[in-house]
Amino acid sequence: MGEKERAKLKNQRLKEYVIILAVKVKDLGEFGLIDRLNKMIADAGINKASPGLILGIGDDAAVWQGDSAIQLATVDTMVQDVHFTPDTAAWVEVGWKSLAINLSDIAAMGGLPRYALIALALPDVLDVKDITELYRGLIDCAKEYGVAIVGGNISKASQVSITITVLGNAPGNKILRRSGAKPGDVIALTGYAGSAAAGLVMLKSKLKLKAADAKYLRNAFLHPVPRIAEGRLLIKIGITAAIDTSDGLLADLRYICEESRVSALVHADRLPVHDVVRKNFPDQSVAMALGGGEDYQLLFTGSIESINKVKKAAACPVTVIGEITKGKAGQIDIKGGGIDRIAVKGYGWTHF
Amino acid sequence: MGEKERAKLKNQRLKEYVIILAVKVKDLGEFGLIDRLNKMIADAGINKASPGLILGIGDDAAVWQGDSAIQLATVDTMVQDVHFTPDTAAWVEVGWKSLAINLSDIAAMGGLPRYALIALALPDVLDVKDITELYRGLIDCAKEYGVAIVGGNISKASQVSITITVLGNAPGNKILRRSGAKPGDVIALTGYAGSAAAGLVMLKSKLKLKAADAKYLRNAFLHPVPRIAEGRLLIKIGITAAIDTSDGLLADLRYICEESRVSALVHADRLPVHDVVRKNFPDQSVAMALGGGEDYQLLFTGSIESINKVKKAAACPVTVIGEITKGKAGQIDIKGGGIDRIAVKGYGWTHF
Repeated sequence: MGEKERAKLKNQRLKEYVIILAVKVKDLGEFGLIDRLNKMIADAGINKASPGLILGIGDDAAVWQGDSAIQLATVDTMVQDVHFTPDTAAWVEVGWKSLAINLSDIAAMGGLPRYALIALALPDVLDVKDITELYRGLIDCAKEYGVAIVGGNISKASQVSITITVLGNAPGNKILRRSGAKPGDVIALTGYAGSAAAGLVMLKSKLKLKAADAKYLRNAFLHPVPRIAEGRLLIKIGITAAIDTSDGLLADLRYICEESRVSALVHADRLPVHDVVRKNFPDQSVAMALGGGEDYQLLFTGSIESINKVKKAAACPVTVIGEITKGKAGQIDIKGGGIDRIAVKGYGWTHF
Repeated sequence: MGEKERAKLKNQRLKEYVIILAVKVKDLGEFGLIDRLNKMIADAGINKASPGLILGIGDDAAVWQGDSAIQLATVDTMVQDVHFTPDTAAWVEVGWKSLAINLSDIAAMGGLPRYALIALALPDVLDVKDITELYRGLIDCAKEYGVAIVGGNISKASQVSITITVLGNAPGNKILRRSGAKPGDVIALTGYAGSAAAGLVMLKSKLKLKAADAKYLRNAFLHPVPRIAEGRLLIKIGITAAIDTSDGLLADLRYICEESRVSALVHADRLPVHDVVRKNFPDQSVAMALGGGEDYQLLFTGSIESINKVKKAAACPVTVIGEITKGKAGQIDIKGGGIDRIAVKGYGWTHF
């Protein structure tokens, strides 16, 4: 390419960039927006890298070659001013998180995510730049975990919402259910508990923390890492009950206990609370760890031997936080950490 | 059952009914609402009737046994005050339609729908009765077409929206794409064109028509019938290009022409306009048939011989409306019906 062509191309790219900055969704139109987002998917090469995919976006339905493994499907929605606010979350973070929370559900079943369908509802006065940023986050996450974006829908609405369906499979035909916990099993958790809740408090209250602490907490809330490799590891080691912590550790543990018809004892002084959380929220950190949602860690149960195997093989911290007991189904008791022994009444997040 | 028990049961049912009438979503709570909707799915027996299903709602993801056929997936959203308004559509109709339009996409690929995931976004002041009615319509449609409701999500939002993902497969591994039209093919349509648009005009303008006419038009807009059997028939007969008419006949024909790199000629006087539409909208019926969306018929192309086979075998009317020509890709001309020959500029519905 000659110097003149290079200058021309640079000029054109600049022009395109300026246009993107200025344009609202209603200026670009539905099909203009769809074309732009599809181009982002194509440029990222995520669908080309998907082995069985026959047809992505562009016909009446996505098409791929089936396989005879167990199939998994999950759907989740993020709504503006309910799950996120643009003044505390960048659009690229909203994009990442909206896909990652779905991948976390597939991880919690011990599966591999493969295909995503994205339904966006948008006000027409939204900046196109915001949506392309959202898609940048989505595509980053899809690329990271080998997920093809095969379908979508865009609709007008008064409020931004992102509904994502993720399909996956379980090679080896084994899955992790909530219902396999047995009395005598120990309870373990990947990563840390309460970091996302602490991040949310920091963002909402506009707390000024040390840069490194602020970064850790922001990422804990806005950049969850789906535990896909760990889910596969749990399957391999023979763990039988697991869930991802989205509603809060106690709330999610209760699901396991209810489905397994068992009760549980949690040791509050053994909770893996991250140093950043302990340091910045000394009085709230245990409550955040027990009640705070959206950590998207794997909470699982098994014999002490198998949990030890997981600890040895996992790339992330794995902490034993309690044990499954033979009480009333769904009952959770807490002791330690200054708590004598209490039965839990209230549980995590609910929408209404 | 004795008389006393009967009276007690009656009383209890009445009480439940009164509670349902009075209760808002926020009174019942997220989990109360989820339990109620899941019970409706269980009572309808739709998931039990689904052969490969291992796990429906109630764990981190739905689980079913895969098969090696070609798989299909599609997603669509209906938003209050964009796609429907409660003063013109009953909630049971909104429920039916929100699933049926997705099944139509599977039908347009020649597939069989199998699983649906339902994401609801709701204001907390909405009556629970409205949502149970919505679900009644959804479940009716799922039952009619053998679809299991295997996953869902409920979120708070300022506006009701229903996002449904439907998964299906294509037994025999053949699908109908938009890209198979060839010059010389004729263009055919199942059912009628413009009836849904006429129904929408009637509902919006609160026109008082004869009861039978009003019923036909209301159903045309609010109770679309996915052409699943017809899609399978098209595959069997070897039709290669098809789409469902959701954006409008011309808009959807243009998709076929663009994807197939061909042009088309439509004969306006051959359009299958229903008598009710012709009679009640004499001056608008052709425009409704060409431009009106949401008929959810199958628009397809093939040799005159294969189209004749479809006509003979289909349970619904099938009408030849034009032919594929060798012009500029995506160009559509119209003649007949008082129109000399015009090239089409504008196309159907767009969101922004």
